[in-house]
Amino acid sequence: MAAGKIPVLTPRSTGFPRWYQDIVSKAELADNGPVRGTMVIRPYGYAIWERMVAEMDARIKLAGAENAYFPLFIPESYLRREAEHVEGFSPELAVVTHAGGKQLEEAVVVRPTSETVIGEFMAKWVQSYRDLPLLLNQWANVVRWEKRPRIFLRTSEFLWQEGHTAHASYEDARNYARQILHETYQDFMVNVLAIPVVVGRKTARERFAGAVNTTCCEAMTGDGKALQMGTSHELGQNFAKAFRHRLPVQGQQTRAGLDDLLGTSTRMVGGLIMVHGDDGLRVPPALAPIQIVVTAIKDEVVEAVHKIGAELRAAGVRVRVDDRTDIPFGRRAIDWELKGIPLRIEVGPRDLAAGTAMIARRLTGGPKTAIALTDLVDQLPQLLANEQQVMLTEATVARDGRIVEVASIDEAAEAAVDGWAKVEWSVLGVEGEAKLAQSAVTVRCLQRADRAVPDTEDEPGLVAYVARSY
Amino acid sequence: MAAGKIPVLTPRSTGFPRWYQDIVSKAELADNGPVRGTMVIRPYGYAIWERMVAEMDARIKLAGAENAYFPLFIPESYLRREAEHVEGFSPELAVVTHAGGKQLEEAVVVRPTSETVIGEFMAKWVQSYRDLPLLLNQWANVVRWEKRPRIFLRTSEFLWQEGHTAHASYEDARNYARQILHETYQDFMVNVLAIPVVVGRKTARERFAGAVNTTCCEAMTGDGKALQMGTSHELGQNFAKAFRHRLPVQGQQTRAGLDDLLGTSTRMVGGLIMVHGDDGLRVPPALAPIQIVVTAIKDEVVEAVHKIGAELRAAGVRVRVDDRTDIPFGRRAIDWELKGIPLRIEVGPRDLAAGTAMIARRLTGGPKTAIALTDLVDQLPQLLANEQQVMLTEATVARDGRIVEVASIDEAAEAAVDGWAKVEWSVLGVEGEAKLAQSAVTVRCLQRADRAVPDTEDEPGLVAYVARSY
Repeated sequence: MAAGKIPVLTPRSTGFPRWYQDIVSKAELADNGPVRGTMVIRPYGYAIWERMVAEMDARIKLAGAENAYFPLFIPESYLRREAEHVEGFSPELAVVTHAGGKQLEEAVVVRPTSETVIGEFMAKWVQSYRDLPLLLNQWANVVRWEKRPRIFLRTSEFLWQEGHTAHASYEDARNYARQILHETYQDFMVNVLAIPVVVGRKTARERFAGAVNTTCCEAMTGDGKALQMGTSHELGQNFAKAFRHRLPVQGQQTRAGLDDLLGTSTRMVGGLIMVHGDDGLRVPPALAPIQIVVTAIKDEVVEAVHKIGAELRAAGVRVRVDDRTDIPFGRRAIDWELKGIPLRIEVGPRDLAAGTAMIARRLTGGPKTAIALTDLVDQLPQLLANEQQVMLTEATVARDGRIVEVASIDEAAEAAVDGWAKVEWSVLGVEGEAKLAQSAVTVRCLQRADRAVPDTEDEPGLVAYVARSY
Repeated sequence: MAAGKIPVLTPRSTGFPRWYQDIVSKAELADNGPVRGTMVIRPYGYAIWERMVAEMDARIKLAGAENAYFPLFIPESYLRREAEHVEGFSPELAVVTHAGGKQLEEAVVVRPTSETVIGEFMAKWVQSYRDLPLLLNQWANVVRWEKRPRIFLRTSEFLWQEGHTAHASYEDARNYARQILHETYQDFMVNVLAIPVVVGRKTARERFAGAVNTTCCEAMTGDGKALQMGTSHELGQNFAKAFRHRLPVQGQQTRAGLDDLLGTSTRMVGGLIMVHGDDGLRVPPALAPIQIVVTAIKDEVVEAVHKIGAELRAAGVRVRVDDRTDIPFGRRAIDWELKGIPLRIEVGPRDLAAGTAMIARRLTGGPKTAIALTDLVDQLPQLLANEQQVMLTEATVARDGRIVEVASIDEAAEAAVDGWAKVEWSVLGVEGEAKLAQSAVTVRCLQRADRAVPDTEDEPGLVAYVARSY
């Protein structure tokens, strides 16, 4: 937005949570649902989620996984099979006690996640080693009752994908979890969302209940906190044992399988806002459901903007034509800026006479520039690619500028007031971690010195990223 | 399947319901879920559903509608706002009484459909006539507790799309409902599913509770019954009034909007089985997630089949390469036949030496034919298109052969034992309809003599299609 205008949002600097809610509302992303903690994802917010799903789903399928669908309702008894599992979820469960006009004999739980039921069916479907690896993924809604909901970040119902895989060996299971972490999640977040996530291993304290190893992608938000954007868990044999998912091995014996659990959710929409938002949403071109808006300033140019829209669409650009000349031009421009559309092409009668259009760059800013109409199809796809690159670079610089290397627990706590601290894990340790947790500062992940993901937390030379989080 | 083999399924002619369950199971489409009436959609079944979603979603977007997502949970009070609505659904509701570890102050219902909550938000979002038409669609799971579940056809949870639109005039609402009926539903069912649905208007008795007009697409199943595959309802102002969805009109007054409700579901997978299945599933090429399987008969040809697969994939064909030479060839062939993959390319060492492959046509049958490897990419896409056409023609001939034109109520009842009856609506009337209903025979839809969809059931010269149904 041009300097000097009255902001339509609470400025980010004066109140981050309020600013966040304002973007959700003014960019028409979502509303609160009638049941507390639920959300209505509005068409523009859902179009962004659909683009996330499309990009992620293509990567998941490339990694050899197949989609399936398991029931929303899970018998209550299933959740008791794995002690740590039920402990982790029971305060968040929604329970159906009545259905079909009468009380149920056994209450059913609305899935908080599906590993109990997926585990049971994997056991049924895997008849021999030839059936391994079994690589399944599910796109679905799940329910976890939230005491303090925040739209997209923590809602009582959210949309997600959960990958569940079974492998013949520990190495296969670990390698696949790593492959998804890097080739699906990290690649999508960095190259599509333009979010330079920090990728590492969770400490024992932060690990998913029942996993032997949890790896994650952590984003830095605009207020210097951390947001977990996706996780990839190795479950080892914990779940396979609990859910009787056993495999025949050579020589008639059976052995529990080795499972992975992989997940991302509509929380990523919240991440998009919190990482890239400024005076509105900013959507990177590789993600954007609308990459370019072609705006008719006056009635006389409506036909011309539709022609431009059709040409760009034929060139593979995701275009929206804005011919609503009955709405003042300035109001429309502000709407598209709030929604973070990467490029606007503005065409008035004088532009058309001169054979040019004005280009407004929402993401990286700067003054509008004129471009010949005949150059649009040639130049704009490249401009979109440049904007994507600049956005990632800016986000990376902003992130690195807020990560402070420290050498003590106290310094880590101080740095985490409005940024992240990077500290040697040997300096922190589980005791330091517990101490930081008292002021809501947590270890987001552990990395090796070369930024690789460690195999255990006992490796020498590990560094911990420490921050407050959403 | 070749004649003379032992059938792996219950033959269709000896027990249609059992045959149906056998296909669901042997083609690995779905399993029963642990909670009665729920289903697990297996990867192959889900891939078919994903193809349905992709084809339908493209048509829905072409018709100008935008996807959105509304919450799974609806306050119980919302369903009471529209008397007919709650009456229609209350015996089927699943009710959450406990969540987050305690009893809820107001119980929430798991959505059986979303018009109550969507209606409320449409009212909120429509500020003026400029916001009309508002064209929304949702892909989601819904729950209706089923006393007599049958997988895909009637399950306590199913996946569906529901379109909800608001219009400024009765004509707009009616035209849009008709547009979706013909351009989205009928076009998809006829040209992708190869199911020659009969399209018409429901009688008052069969109409959706609260609608002023319900139109539908009805398929004829392999046992001569009818299956409702999709509906398009004009709600008039019934829902708009109940859900306070009011529009400003010229001159400060307000008026209830005019809504449509449009829906199809995973029931279409059941329709696919029941219409096209024979000794296994048969999937039309335009729908098939796997259009061609390239099968290596022996190890020596594995590299060659992968090359063929890559070439066909590059030509836009959906291909699976079957290189599982450790499983007997015959068993694999039966598996692919059960799954109804349109074409199989079989390659053995001798074929490869001769520069040919054998083509097996699952859908229209006949002996295998040899084809030069160099002709595959040129000829197979056309062969797929031909198979699609033949399938539709065969289904149409089969359907028409089982529709008997009759002149009395008794004859209609008799024809409906194993087929459909076509009878003048003036001969039948609401009394004849009620009489047929006593033996579970219903009017599937009304048509004009020229097969067009009537505007009211009072038009002269209408014909009624009468049948038993799933």
